[in-house]
Amino acid sequence: MRATLIYGAGDIRVEDVPDPRVQEPTDAVVRVLRSCICGSDLWPYGSMPVTEQGERIGHEFLGVVEDVGSEVSGLKAGDIVVAPFAYADNTCRFCAEGLHTSCPRGGFWAANGVDGGQGEAVRVPWAQGTLVKLPVGEDSALLPSLLSLSDVLPTGHHCAVTAGVGPHTSVTVIGDGAVGLSAVLASRRLGAERILLMGRHTDRTGLGREFGATDVITERGEQGVEQIRELTGGEGTQAVLECVGTRQALETAFGVARDGGAVSRVGVPQYTEGPIGFEVFRRNIALTGGVAPARAYIEELMPDVLDGTIEPGRVFDRTIGLEEVPDGYRAMAGREALKVLIRP
Amino acid sequence: MRATLIYGAGDIRVEDVPDPRVQEPTDAVVRVLRSCICGSDLWPYGSMPVTEQGERIGHEFLGVVEDVGSEVSGLKAGDIVVAPFAYADNTCRFCAEGLHTSCPRGGFWAANGVDGGQGEAVRVPWAQGTLVKLPVGEDSALLPSLLSLSDVLPTGHHCAVTAGVGPHTSVTVIGDGAVGLSAVLASRRLGAERILLMGRHTDRTGLGREFGATDVITERGEQGVEQIRELTGGEGTQAVLECVGTRQALETAFGVARDGGAVSRVGVPQYTEGPIGFEVFRRNIALTGGVAPARAYIEELMPDVLDGTIEPGRVFDRTIGLEEVPDGYRAMAGREALKVLIRP
Repeated sequence: MRATLIYGAGDIRVEDVPDPRVQEPTDAVVRVLRSCICGSDLWPYGSMPVTEQGERIGHEFLGVVEDVGSEVSGLKAGDIVVAPFAYADNTCRFCAEGLHTSCPRGGFWAANGVDGGQGEAVRVPWAQGTLVKLPVGEDSALLPSLLSLSDVLPTGHHCAVTAGVGPHTSVTVIGDGAVGLSAVLASRRLGAERILLMGRHTDRTGLGREFGATDVITERGEQGVEQIRELTGGEGTQAVLECVGTRQALETAFGVARDGGAVSRVGVPQYTEGPIGFEVFRRNIALTGGVAPARAYIEELMPDVLDGTIEPGRVFDRTIGLEEVPDGYRAMAGREALKVLIRP
Repeated sequence: MRATLIYGAGDIRVEDVPDPRVQEPTDAVVRVLRSCICGSDLWPYGSMPVTEQGERIGHEFLGVVEDVGSEVSGLKAGDIVVAPFAYADNTCRFCAEGLHTSCPRGGFWAANGVDGGQGEAVRVPWAQGTLVKLPVGEDSALLPSLLSLSDVLPTGHHCAVTAGVGPHTSVTVIGDGAVGLSAVLASRRLGAERILLMGRHTDRTGLGREFGATDVITERGEQGVEQIRELTGGEGTQAVLECVGTRQALETAFGVARDGGAVSRVGVPQYTEGPIGFEVFRRNIALTGGVAPARAYIEELMPDVLDGTIEPGRVFDRTIGLEEVPDGYRAMAGREALKVLIRP
């Protein structure tokens, strides 16, 4: 089959790779109907050292079950399914607590002999626990929104949930990428009253407003912090959803957090040390978030996607075929596209 | 009156200072019955630069109301009261949310013209909001335990609460000082099943066991982390209460936290940057805690002190008069005393 590999920064190739097949009795093989490129894929695309053999890439997909191992029940060939961005057995204690990303038998796509999502098919470990059936057909117009259940929507939701967003919460969302916009949508869905979105791309912040942002702040850094403080009576907001991952975004986040509030982060940290000294302590600001256990949230979020209450798939503003994936990376890295949908 | 001043590292003096008097209609003057020395007082005692004029010190006290301003209701001369370690109006939005340490009209003792607690009397700003009446007499045997309501008990409680400690929680407490032992007591009170105390002073960890610690770990750093992991099936504990404030203690805290758990800190941070990079993110470990809004917890904790359910005053292992305060500091800094009670 064809699949996407990364050979180093800026070097994405679509190549022939072995067809996936059931290897363990708990595996399934899924033919990919839709995949996409993630903002987090842009980190290796920006900085990965050159490799000889290349590495598979992509971690968001939905598709059709083609084969299942002997120990997989509840799934059969022909089922339409979505995969969260990490696989997990869904039976261990961590999974039972909703922390599927810490499942001892779980792992991430495109590593350790497991296929990536940006290809024609994927061998899915622990398929029964990992995959969630979708009550739609292969030609459903909902596929883009359902694909968002793989990562961006539950990631935005996780960010909001661990920050304690609920009715009457004031929220700042830092970052107008697909995860930031999904965090806006998730906050609105959870009842947040006021949602301040920090971003400077007007097409993106425009979608952010449609997703529920009440204010858009185009300034960054100190000036952005000042503007948020002005808009909130000097206090900042109770929840701050950091959807970028840079040190500067984290500093901004602490700057706009209200005393006693929470900074929740879901952008993959591009830093090893953070500014959590006396000032954050004095103000009782919590740091929450982390890699989202997407699997834990899919059943909760899916009904709102199916009935059209939310349309998270609107973050996709470009659709390409598998052979065009290198162009898709260029478009996202160049900020020409917000999020690129792949139809293999 | 006589009061304690610090002139620099290692230089504590008891001197004559002006008698406090009501200055604002919201003030009260309290004659101190009991005060004490805090572990956090040892930070300036260890490192404060030399000053010409000295600074007042001490932030824990209970005493007798001697005078109240015209706008203070509910308090009168003769009332026995305890003061939290920060004063606050108890009427603003932050106070209403239980975050009295962020009260815009609040502040800390021994700063900005407000008396310290280690003296014969204190002018109390926002007295009606700050002080809590105690239903005991001047000679009550409960005074040491009631004095702990000023700081160490609510600080340990805040640490446990913001870490999410409840029934069935597994807890590690880092630090066998008075706050660490109070955190053990608070965790036990909140129903924690297993409480692992990290400390190496056997007299202190002995009291920790009486307060509810189920295990004592005497190793520090990497070895301590390994020991906690061995004791918890490799997972660590859901709640980690960091009651020291050093960078090393924080690193240990993240090391022993279970995935999805919380590191809560109440030791005043002696660092400006912390290790909150990818690993903490991947494991979804939250950082909570902060300076404890002691005032918010006093009414909740007091009944258990009054009826003897808990005896937090057992952390006091030495009692001195006001003139002996310099010796008290020496004893605490030299780890000869766990916590020193002052009877002015």
